[in-house]
Amino acid sequence: MGLINKSEDFSGWYNDVVKKAKLSDYSSVKGCMTILPYGYSLWEMIQGELNKKIKLLGASNMAFPMLIPYSYFSREQEHVEGFVPEVALVTSAGGKKLEEPLVVRPTSEVVIHEYFKDKICSWRDLPLKVNQWCSVVRWEKRPRPFIRTTEFWWQEGHTAHATLAEAQSQVLDAIFMYRDFCHNFLAIPVMVGKKPNIERFAGADETFTIEGMMGDGKAVQMGTSHLLGAGFAKSIDMNFQNVEMSNCLPCLTSWGVTTRLIGSLIMVHGDQKGLVIPPFIAPILIYIVPIWRNKEEYQVVYDFVIKFTSYLSFYKITFFVDWRDYVTPGVKFQDAELQGYPLRFDVGVRDLKSNNLSFVCRDTGDREVFHFSLFSENSDKAGSIFIESLQRKIHDRMYRKAFLSRKNNIHVLPDIKKLSLNASSQNVFYLSKWCEDDYEEIKSLQLTVRCLLPDEYDLKENLGLENCDISSLWCCVHGKSCKNEIKLVIIAKCY
Amino acid sequence: MGLINKSEDFSGWYNDVVKKAKLSDYSSVKGCMTILPYGYSLWEMIQGELNKKIKLLGASNMAFPMLIPYSYFSREQEHVEGFVPEVALVTSAGGKKLEEPLVVRPTSEVVIHEYFKDKICSWRDLPLKVNQWCSVVRWEKRPRPFIRTTEFWWQEGHTAHATLAEAQSQVLDAIFMYRDFCHNFLAIPVMVGKKPNIERFAGADETFTIEGMMGDGKAVQMGTSHLLGAGFAKSIDMNFQNVEMSNCLPCLTSWGVTTRLIGSLIMVHGDQKGLVIPPFIAPILIYIVPIWRNKEEYQVVYDFVIKFTSYLSFYKITFFVDWRDYVTPGVKFQDAELQGYPLRFDVGVRDLKSNNLSFVCRDTGDREVFHFSLFSENSDKAGSIFIESLQRKIHDRMYRKAFLSRKNNIHVLPDIKKLSLNASSQNVFYLSKWCEDDYEEIKSLQLTVRCLLPDEYDLKENLGLENCDISSLWCCVHGKSCKNEIKLVIIAKCY
Repeated sequence: MGLINKSEDFSGWYNDVVKKAKLSDYSSVKGCMTILPYGYSLWEMIQGELNKKIKLLGASNMAFPMLIPYSYFSREQEHVEGFVPEVALVTSAGGKKLEEPLVVRPTSEVVIHEYFKDKICSWRDLPLKVNQWCSVVRWEKRPRPFIRTTEFWWQEGHTAHATLAEAQSQVLDAIFMYRDFCHNFLAIPVMVGKKPNIERFAGADETFTIEGMMGDGKAVQMGTSHLLGAGFAKSIDMNFQNVEMSNCLPCLTSWGVTTRLIGSLIMVHGDQKGLVIPPFIAPILIYIVPIWRNKEEYQVVYDFVIKFTSYLSFYKITFFVDWRDYVTPGVKFQDAELQGYPLRFDVGVRDLKSNNLSFVCRDTGDREVFHFSLFSENSDKAGSIFIESLQRKIHDRMYRKAFLSRKNNIHVLPDIKKLSLNASSQNVFYLSKWCEDDYEEIKSLQLTVRCLLPDEYDLKENLGLENCDISSLWCCVHGKSCKNEIKLVIIAKCY
Repeated sequence: MGLINKSEDFSGWYNDVVKKAKLSDYSSVKGCMTILPYGYSLWEMIQGELNKKIKLLGASNMAFPMLIPYSYFSREQEHVEGFVPEVALVTSAGGKKLEEPLVVRPTSEVVIHEYFKDKICSWRDLPLKVNQWCSVVRWEKRPRPFIRTTEFWWQEGHTAHATLAEAQSQVLDAIFMYRDFCHNFLAIPVMVGKKPNIERFAGADETFTIEGMMGDGKAVQMGTSHLLGAGFAKSIDMNFQNVEMSNCLPCLTSWGVTTRLIGSLIMVHGDQKGLVIPPFIAPILIYIVPIWRNKEEYQVVYDFVIKFTSYLSFYKITFFVDWRDYVTPGVKFQDAELQGYPLRFDVGVRDLKSNNLSFVCRDTGDREVFHFSLFSENSDKAGSIFIESLQRKIHDRMYRKAFLSRKNNIHVLPDIKKLSLNASSQNVFYLSKWCEDDYEEIKSLQLTVRCLLPDEYDLKENLGLENCDISSLWCCVHGKSCKNEIKLVIIAKCY
């Protein structure tokens, strides 16, 4: 029942974890997944936290139709070219062939922009910010659960602004919201950067991305935020009257994260025993394994567990008690490890007699002991504070571990020749400089430019890289003497 | 800007409220709606409350694919006949024609049963209970926002049980959960009954329903719970080993409520001024209208509103302050009425000086006065308790009003002849007796049998009907001497 070896076959290990930890299943339609209860509870936790942040950005949740007339897609040239190869088409409905086919939404820009057009008359109606939680469909040739599926679940934010400056700041607000969420809840360090022009969202002027490094050194694009070009508004004649009463085009943005966050969480934190869930996003924080050999012991353990869990409930600390009587504690330990609950409390009679209970932190496997009076009615908040500080400690440890691992797998690439020498041996993030020209040599090595970093990027602060000389890096075919604008970039293999 | 007259044109009034109160919009695809922010926040409130209840029933949330192979539908004979005329078909995807068309789910029985089949081996795996929040598509010829749309949002619960008795009790648990929700949150009295065989869900053995009476005397089916026939499990060879190690068919159920609940809420409580939202489901409980004539007054009012709303926030009481400076208080009053916020607080300088503030209850329009010290920091919980008791009072008043209105529109129907005399003049619920035979005469009057009531139905307790002689009612073509089994039924026009 062990998992496929992670260091030998990362991809096989990943699929094995997804399956054995009961996160998702393949479904009857190729490329589509079913999200199982445990996987869905993770998504609900992500939704709950992000939803609060999205509302703080001023966006209102809404629901738009999942079916979109095909002609809507053809209005914006780049958009139609970007999405049409991937869409699913409804051609008959209610027993009749449709006059115009309907697209199952791959994203909702075109339909939400119709709504914007309808609502926006004057500057008073701006900014207009909406958000939608739903699933979308993009036909996928090489599916991988959570990371790349034909149907996936996401949140899509869409905004309209009176000025370009306001839209630009919205694009950044969104991408930094995602970054903070990854840092503070998923315990995943991500880098924020701009996509090269060639990798932009179809129809966007600029696309910002957060990129995470997985356990095998490959990159995952974990969220994006787009400054949309004028094309969208122009194509449907969306405009507003500004304070001076003249007609203007509003500036639009869109931004989203998907169920891919769950895939990233598995690939960053998982180990040979299974999932490791970061404590602030864990649907269940504490897994309790009661241990008994006979009726008397059962009674003693039961009484304690009831008191203990009443305490936890009171302080809204989430838990699950594994009362199964047809498997051994050993099996329960393995199951708890597989599903990655941050804390496991083992409750046996001997421990209760000694007044000392022990718990195991999933991330380190270390066992610690505490006095159970911490969780008595008289202890007041002491037990809850204890758990909270454990959560903080585990979270910080997991984040630091991921941060260090990423740091150790970022290679400074002095020139493009080194790329072809190294690329096949090991997956790392290459830090180099590039002019956005001639992508072919990089692509031919199955590498992609993940993002352009800002000019003033602090390599020590953001990536932990010290004494890093980046003055003479280059990674374009023109060589060091390239005359184009040169940007600091991350180059990596990706999912 | 007034609404269409409710008593003259109920249907027009309804559409007008939906539009002007900004609940939903028509969309670019015929029969599909866009749910606007205020409408969606109502749906989020409904989801929040129901989700808790569904989890208490032991169901886990999951996500299943929205696309289902066509062949899955054809397995269960009645099911395919019931749904195929309404489905939307995806016939091409990713630029290619599909070998087998995919159905955009109209409901998920067939795909969730595949999941059940996969998970269920032994009696230990039962009961298995799952729930999904999603949207589904059923091609609709005569759409009406929230009540009947091609795409609608819903919750679908699906369960599998080892015994018929357990499944039967699950079916009732679900329908009574819906009833309680309608009573305690929507302030809508509903009757629980069984659908006549001819009106059952496609493939079910029994369908239970909750029926509500709208403001115009017509019925809305507000939720259903189905005991599924053995056909579903048999058709895919789903079975389990019972304790005695023999193979058995599990007993299945499914149950759901939809965005139609929002339509019902409008049609039951709305009045000539607009929506009236019951206080326990209101996304915003208190609408605050600050009133000022100059800068000095603005400052005084502003200071108070900040203090007042801090108090409300602390006690998690929801509010909205209408600070618009380009409309009059009169316009704000109208908007508040249109969107039906349960309480409106008007804050003017004169009121503040007298220490007395006034508020208006949306349901009655009555203005009441209170001393604002109730909401000072020193008052502790007093203000919050005051608001809570107001909520309770308003809720009970709204429920009672709806209950009385329903009672007054239930007519006891001594025989079927009276039906044809009365039916055209007025919409009411007819209480009568029927043998489930020969539906044609009832249908020809555009009436439907909404539900069969239980034999022991307490007419006084449930419907407020006293001294009601039902011994000699009949509403079938066979007359009083009908030899079939006769049931107490509700007959009405419906949406």
